[in-house]
Amino acid sequence: MDVLRRTPAVMEALLRGVADSWARGTEGPDTFSPFDVVGHLIDGEETDFIVRARIILARGPDRRFERYDRFRHRKRNAGRTLESLLDEFARLRAANLATLASWRLTDAELDLPGEHPSLGAVTLRHLLASWVVHDLGHIAQIVRVMAKQYKAEVGPWVPYLPVLTDHERPRS
Amino acid sequence: MDVLRRTPAVMEALLRGVADSWARGTEGPDTFSPFDVVGHLIDGEETDFIVRARIILARGPDRRFERYDRFRHRKRNAGRTLESLLDEFARLRAANLATLASWRLTDAELDLPGEHPSLGAVTLRHLLASWVVHDLGHIAQIVRVMAKQYKAEVGPWVPYLPVLTDHERPRS
Repeated sequence: MDVLRRTPAVMEALLRGVADSWARGTEGPDTFSPFDVVGHLIDGEETDFIVRARIILARGPDRRFERYDRFRHRKRNAGRTLESLLDEFARLRAANLATLASWRLTDAELDLPGEHPSLGAVTLRHLLASWVVHDLGHIAQIVRVMAKQYKAEVGPWVPYLPVLTDHERPRS
Repeated sequence: MDVLRRTPAVMEALLRGVADSWARGTEGPDTFSPFDVVGHLIDGEETDFIVRARIILARGPDRRFERYDRFRHRKRNAGRTLESLLDEFARLRAANLATLASWRLTDAELDLPGEHPSLGAVTLRHLLASWVVHDLGHIAQIVRVMAKQYKAEVGPWVPYLPVLTDHERPRS
C-alpha cells in the first residue's frame, strides 16, 4: 500500500501541465502515450485489481476473473483532458486503497485462490503484488515514452542513454 | 526546463519515507539502488551538466569536458539518509535551473560546440537535451529496481510484467 498510494503523486509531478508534445507522444503505432497510460491505470482501478480481489474474497464456486480490456480507455477517454484523468485516477486510487485497508486482510485471506483466465491459479497475495509492479512498470513506460520524444535532440548521446533504445515489449 | 524541474518532485513522491527494502534494494552486484540513483543525480548536478555548459559557454580554446565519475556518490554519500539526499538534490536542481534560466540562451548559443571525452563533438543543445533524457532514464531505473524487489511476490504474473525482466544495460 505504501507504493500504491504514491503513484497518483508521481503522475501528478510528471504530467500535470506538461506540453502535449510530452503527454501525447508515443513509441509508434499502437503504443501508449503518457495520456493513454493514465487512462489504462484508471481502467485498472475500475475493472481489474479491486474487482478481482472481491471475486477471490467472495469465496464463491467460480473464482475466474474476467479478461482485462487493455484498450477500454481509448473510447472512454476520447476528448478528455490529461488533467481530468489525473484527478480521476487519484480519486479512484484513494477510494480503492481505503477499501483495501478496510478489509484488514489476514495471511490466510492473502493465500485465498483465484483463477486468472490465462495464467491459471493465483492467490490474492499475487494479485495485490502484481498491482504494485503494474504501477511501477507503467511509470517506467511513461518516462521511457517521454524520453523518446527527445531522441533526435540528444544527438551523439544516444548510446549513453539506454532508455532511448528500450522497446515496448508485448506481454506474452 | 519543464521536465528538469519536475524530477525532484517525482523522486519525492516515489521515495520520501519509503522502507529501506524499497530504497536500498538493487538489481544485483554493482548495480544501483534507488538511494544510489539519487546520489548519482546529485553528482550530475555538481559535476556534469551545468559544469559542462559553462565550459561550452566560456568559448575557450579547450572545450573538452572532464570524464564523469559514475561512482563518486558511493564514497560521498556513505552514512547519509535518503531524506537528506532528496533535500540536497532538490536544492541543487533548483539552483542549477535558476542558473540555466539566467543565461537566456539564444539559438546561436545552443549551437556552440563542446568536446565530450568519448563522444567527440557535441553542442550545448545536445548537452541540455541529454540532461532531460538522463533524468527520465534514471526515473525508469528507480521504478524498475523497486519493481524487482517484488518479483517473487507476484508469482505467476511475471510474464505479464515486463519491467521485472528488463535488465540494466551497460553504457557503450
